[in-house]
Parts: sequence; C-alpha cells; structure tokens
Amino acid sequence: MSDMDVFFNPQSIAIIGASESYKFGYWTTKYLLNSKFKTYPVNITKDTIFNQKAYKSIKEIPFDIELAIILVGNDKVLDAVIECIDKQVKGIIIESAGFAETGIDRFISIQKKIETLAIQSKVRIIGPNCVGIVNFENHFSSTEIDFDEDDTDYGNISIIAQSGVLGNIFIDWAISQKIKLSKAITLGNKVDVDEIDMIKYLNNDPTTKVLTVYLEGVKRGRELITTLKSASKPILILKNGKSQMGSKAIISHTGSIAGDNKIYDALFKQCPTTFPVNNFYEMFNIAQVFSTQPLPKGQNLAIITSSGSLGILACDLMDKYGLELANLKQSTIENMRSVSPNWTSVKNPVDLGPSLFTTFKPALKSLLSDENVDALLFIFAVPRKPLEAFNLSMAPQLKIVYKLIEQYQKPVIICVFGSRWVFDFFLKHTLRYQIPVMRQLEHAIKAFKLTHKYYDSSTK
Amino acid sequence: MSDMDVFFNPQSIAIIGASESYKFGYWTTKYLLNSKFKTYPVNITKDTIFNQKAYKSIKEIPFDIELAIILVGNDKVLDAVIECIDKQVKGIIIESAGFAETGIDRFISIQKKIETLAIQSKVRIIGPNCVGIVNFENHFSSTEIDFDEDDTDYGNISIIAQSGVLGNIFIDWAISQKIKLSKAITLGNKVDVDEIDMIKYLNNDPTTKVLTVYLEGVKRGRELITTLKSASKPILILKNGKSQMGSKAIISHTGSIAGDNKIYDALFKQCPTTFPVNNFYEMFNIAQVFSTQPLPKGQNLAIITSSGSLGILACDLMDKYGLELANLKQSTIENMRSVSPNWTSVKNPVDLGPSLFTTFKPALKSLLSDENVDALLFIFAVPRKPLEAFNLSMAPQLKIVYKLIEQYQKPVIICVFGSRWVFDFFLKHTLRYQIPVMRQLEHAIKAFKLTHKYYDSSTK
Repeated sequence: MSDMDVFFNPQSIAIIGASESYKFGYWTTKYLLNSKFKTYPVNITKDTIFNQKAYKSIKEIPFDIELAIILVGNDKVLDAVIECIDKQVKGIIIESAGFAETGIDRFISIQKKIETLAIQSKVRIIGPNCVGIVNFENHFSSTEIDFDEDDTDYGNISIIAQSGVLGNIFIDWAISQKIKLSKAITLGNKVDVDEIDMIKYLNNDPTTKVLTVYLEGVKRGRELITTLKSASKPILILKNGKSQMGSKAIISHTGSIAGDNKIYDALFKQCPTTFPVNNFYEMFNIAQVFSTQPLPKGQNLAIITSSGSLGILACDLMDKYGLELANLKQSTIENMRSVSPNWTSVKNPVDLGPSLFTTFKPALKSLLSDENVDALLFIFAVPRKPLEAFNLSMAPQLKIVYKLIEQYQKPVIICVFGSRWVFDFFLKHTLRYQIPVMRQLEHAIKAFKLTHKYYDSSTK
Repeated sequence: MSDMDVFFNPQSIAIIGASESYKFGYWTTKYLLNSKFKTYPVNITKDTIFNQKAYKSIKEIPFDIELAIILVGNDKVLDAVIECIDKQVKGIIIESAGFAETGIDRFISIQKKIETLAIQSKVRIIGPNCVGIVNFENHFSSTEIDFDEDDTDYGNISIIAQSGVLGNIFIDWAISQKIKLSKAITLGNKVDVDEIDMIKYLNNDPTTKVLTVYLEGVKRGRELITTLKSASKPILILKNGKSQMGSKAIISHTGSIAGDNKIYDALFKQCPTTFPVNNFYEMFNIAQVFSTQPLPKGQNLAIITSSGSLGILACDLMDKYGLELANLKQSTIENMRSVSPNWTSVKNPVDLGPSLFTTFKPALKSLLSDENVDALLFIFAVPRKPLEAFNLSMAPQLKIVYKLIEQYQKPVIICVFGSRWVFDFFLKHTLRYQIPVMRQLEHAIKAFKLTHKYYDSSTK
C-alpha cells in the first residue's frame, strides 16, 4: 500500500467549505454527495448541504475520515488543516488558492506553516492552489468533471499537472478527443506531495501504462532524476518556464522557481524512458500511441496517402527526427501495383490519390506484411463529399486496419487532413479499434520515434 | 485586365469529360451546370448531361468559349487541348492526372507536348494534375465545394497550392474553422501557369489582403524572388521537400524537382513581406491575423489569462520569437487590481484565474489603453461547466473586445484551451467580430511577430 492510495480511493471524505451555491467548490460538493463515495459536508454557516447534514467542523463528524478536501478561503485554510490533522485524516487536498503565488508575505508564511505541519504530522497534503485528483477507474473526483455515462471505459494514460486550471482543461480536451485516461493529478503549490511521489505511485499503478507530466518548478531535482531513471514506463514531460521570460513568470504563478534548465537537459539524457514534448496536443497524441499501439521494432516507416504533398511533408519530418523510409520489397510494390491505377505512385511514400478509398485494404496488408516495414503512417486527405459517398464502404474497412495491427504487431497512426466532419468521421470509426487519429504529421512522426526509442531502451 | 482573369470569372465554360455518373468530375459538372455560369458539357458518348445537351467535342459548341475544363483520361488530354486551342479559348484547366508525376516516359512526353502548345498558342493553361480554381467572391469553382448558403460572405485570404487534393483539403478545413477565403488556386504540374503568375495576379487583386502559398517545386527561382521582392501584400509560404528524403519524394509526386534550398533561404531574407511557415494550421491561423487585425506597431505584448501556466508557456514562446512583455504602467496595474480578487496576479502576464470571466472587460480596456502595450494575447482556459453557466454573460462581452480593437487599433488574438465545446463556443461568438481564435499559443505568438515585421517593412 502506498500513502498516495488515499487520494485515489478514499473510504471516507470530508468536504471543508462544501457549497450548494454556485461558486468554487459547488460541483465538487454536488458530485461527491451524490456519488457512491461516503462524503460528509463541512460548512460553518449551513445546517444542511444538498439535503445532507452539514457539520461545523471536521472534528464534529462522528466517523473516521480518510480524506479531507479543503475549499475554504485562503485565510481559513491553516485552521482547517490543523483540525484535519487532529481528526487523523490520512490525506488532505487543499484546492483554495491565494498562497505563495500571490507574492504577499502573509500568504507565503501561511503556506510555509502548512508545509511544516505536513512534515510533522506525516499527513500527506496535495496543494494548495490545485483541483486535486480524478480517478477514471472508480470515478472518484475532487473536481468538476462529467464522467461519460455512455462510455465508462477508463484508459491507461495518466496525467500529472501542476496547475489546477490546466489539469481540468487537459481532462476536458482529452475526453473530447476520445483519449481514455486512468488518473489525473494536479499538484498546485506542492507543500508536500510532488511529482516525484506521483511518478513513483503511477509507475507501480497497474492501470497506468504511460505518464504525461506538466512541470513548472521542481524542488527536488536530484531525486526527480533518480526516480525517472528507475521508472519502467514511458514518461512524457512538458516543461514550461524554460526561457528567462517564462521562468520569471513562474514565480508569480505558483511561487516556486523554475529550476535549473541544466537539470532538465540531464534528465532527458540520463532517463531512457523519459521524453520531452513541446505542447500538450503533442503530449497526448504521443501518449495515445504508447497507450494503444505495439512498439515499432525498427525505424523503417511506410507511408500511404491520398495526397502526395502530405507524403512529402512527412518525409521532411522523418528526416528531422531521424526515421527511415522503408525500402519496400519488390513483391510489395508489385502487389500494390496490381490493385492500383497506373497513375498512382506505389513507391514509398505510397501515393494512391483518391483510389486510396478502394485500395487501401490490400495496400495496407502488403505494406504491413513486408518485413522491411516497422511501422505505418496512413495519411488521409480527402474532401468531405467523396468521403460521404464512400462512407458505408469505408467504415467497416477500418476494422481491418485494427486486425492488421494485431496480426503483424506493427504500429499504425492515421493522420487526417480536412474539415472537422472528416476528422470526426475517423475519430468515430477508429475509436473502438483504438487506432490513434491525429491532425498533425509532426506528432505522428515524433510518436514513431519515441515509441521506438522506448522499445530500444526496454529491450536492452 | 490580366490574362489570369479568365480563370476567376469566365464568361463561358466548356467541361470536357463532363460526367453525370459518380466519378472524377461528377461534382464539378453538377455544380457548374446548375450555376449562374454559362456552361456547356462535352462528352463523347452521351447526348445529354444532367438534362442539358452534350457536345461530342468543344468544337461543336456554337458559341465562344472562354474557359475549358478538361477532366478526361490522361491519354485523351492532348487531343482535347489541341481542340481547345482551335476553338480559341482563353484559358484551360487540366484536372486529369497521370503525366510527369508517373515517371513514365510516355506520359512525361505528353506533358511536354502540352507545355509546347501553351507557349506557341499563348492560351494559358493550369495543370495538369490539379483541381483548378475556386473564387469565393463570385462562386465560380472548377472543383467540388459547398459554398455555405447561410454564410455567403467571402474573405480576403487567398490560397495557392500545388497539389489538387491538398487544395481541396485546405478549403474544406478553412471553411470548417470559419476562416473566410477570397480565391483558391491549385497548380498541379504547372505546364504553364505557375505560382509567379498567380502571386502577381493576387498582389493586384482588390479582394485579396494576404496570400498563403504551398510550394513543392519551383522552376523559375530567380523570377520568384523578383516577384516576391516587389510584392506589397503579406505572403506566407509553406515549402515542402526541404529535406533530402522529401525532395526525392517530390519527383514522384508532380515530376518537378524541389529546387535549391538556398533559393528559399535567400527568398525569405530578401523579400520583406514573405514569411515561412511550418504547417498549414499555422499558415491559416497567421493569415487570419493579417486578414482581420490591425498591425502591431511594436513588439510589446500584454497577456491576460485564466491559467498562469499557459501564460508562462506563452512567455517561453515570446522569448523564442523575440517579442517583449509589455512593461505595464502603474495606473494599468492599479486599474486591474481594483476589479480583481487579491489572489490574482495583475502583473504581465496577467493571471486572473476563474475571475477572468467577470473581470476581463475592464482588464482588457486597461491593457489596450496602456501606451506601452502594442498587442494583446487573451488566453482562455476554462472547463466547459463554468463556461456553460456564464454563457449568457460571456457572449455579449466578446463584442467589447471587438470594439476595443477598433478603438485602440491594436491586435488581439484569443487562444482557447479546453474541450471542443469550449473552442466552438468562442468560434461561434467571435466569428461575427472577426477576432482570430486559435488552439496553439505558438501560432499566436508567431502571428504577432510576423504582423509586426510586416508593419515594420511597410512603414520603411
């Protein structure tokens, strides 16, 4: 048992600053009080919250409390923390903001006191200035979230984010892109629990396969490197405040300092399963490839497309990332020639033009069965009208892509160019087969590179 | 009058290879025959096409024809071109593929013969291997497109693309993002008309304000530089085949060669209104800023956000692109402080957290009226639920952003992070005010940089 477990599967919860009016904490209160989780509202002025008895203080609750969620104003947080410790909770999530990030001495000093209390009491504390935890597996959440009732499946991608707002945004966006998550954690000002605690926890968590981490400031740089060095799972890190301008801005955000950039350079060099990413779309697109696809055993990529231009753009990016165009076997080329019009180009990158619609099935089979091919990029560019026309014949064929991935154990990524309607068509039809669909070639190419690097490091 | 006019506003059209069955050319035929444009179908086997008399050859049409659109199979194209020249058309668009891009000698030689015919006859020819022209102003189109009936407004962004498929995709995507276009041109294998002809035409076109150009191979490198040097409008260029791998792939795509990379390096150095872009989302996002926003007179940016983390990421990018954080006047800071909770950060980057919802109006006014601020980035990150709750009060306030842009003549870009619902909310409510909405901070920062560079060059 890890002391982080209480944050993901609490047996009993107190919400300090529970609210039934429309303000900070409203959704958390409403959600948890109506959930399967044993939850007790604490509110200094109200007798009931959502028709449930409210307590004046956590100490009045006549049951053991494992987890306290603190939502009160910044000047009331210290007293709440002291009461929680007296109540012998195992964990506290402080969501309230207004501490070191304000730059105001009084609030910095309160934050320091909470830090000391955490060390003395050994009660683990997340926050302040965060939105805590979402566990997609058991639907525990300390923040506003709509678990999709039609689609209760959880995934194997977990998120660690410093910022509360951004954590929520990550989740919102990922869900709208049909990216399936396991656990999401926002850390805020990190008086106690930090990314190192959570990376260790997730690296041992059976439902997490890949970690995505958004980092601002790091206090324990050396321990972070040690932790990442010994991690076995792929870890994608989006680091901000790398520039001087950005690092100055960090101070007024969470009151922490950016940390020496040299630490990060060392980190990515020394930790073979840890990879830097440039923005959060890239982060989740690559995470999804780790999450759903077999690892590429080599760097030889086959490209099949309906647009020669996009094939060329992909080649430029392969060059940038150091991937190779697979040298197709003669029999592969002949197989594709036999099913394609004479004006198509069946050399790699394979450009079938609009005939891709009707010929991609045998072409994909030829390419994936070619032993010189380690991975396949399927670039789909077509206007809406022909796609609508071929809709009925196209959709079931995507199942074949899935079967080919399974059969040959080679990864496939689909890049879609076109209107939103076209993108959504693919998202809808590939969702059940867990084939990653992206809008940006660079994310796909980088995903092939990183999954192969990870393959290399894990087979050494 | 330019000899390109015939491609954008033809007084009479023949479609050679007109088709009423579901294949290449079907939509073009159907659209033009039902349009206000005088169109005559030519088909060797049918007597009628969509209930209109079909001619066996263009020469049988008893009227003058200005523009011929050729859609027949590659082996029939040469004869069709000869007949069009006999008929004394002014322009020909050859959409059929299967020429130099096949690498097959016979087809390369046919393409060369067409090239010679163009030179001898002085009939201007676009293509082959393209989809021709879309003019959003008068709704002339030689390719499948749905002009939005509810929204017939055209814009001032024009597109030049080599690839037919990609041209169509650009248009599809731009329309789905509410980006308004003026003219779209696909050039294909360029036997005659090339990007130089079209850049000259668009630079003089009163409805084009910004040009976006997707380039593969360039035959007349020196003339291209001369043309771009004397251009007055901003021109964004996406060049592919820059790597060795990519440049090899170009040969089998349109049969042209990539051209020396040194030409492009020289081009961006010597042509002050021409700027390189990295992918087509970036290209259109930046184009939209040129299209709709006043030019920034300096490089001092104010950032206002609901997420401190995103503010920091933006600072990192400003550092990369060489922009400055505006040094806010004390009165600006005090104005913002007076309307914001004490836990918000009113230094630049201004982080108002969730209070951004209710305070952005006075905050934006303070920032835009500050003489130290040249431009404003509004980073909006909020989960769906609170946005839904504040929906009614938020939407009309976006009108104020528009009014402030007008009043202070300073550009504003909105970056939205969150689910698709949140993005769509902004797209819908800012559309009428023509405020650019993007998903990627880097596109916004680069847009500020390039629009300022353009301002600098045009005031020199």
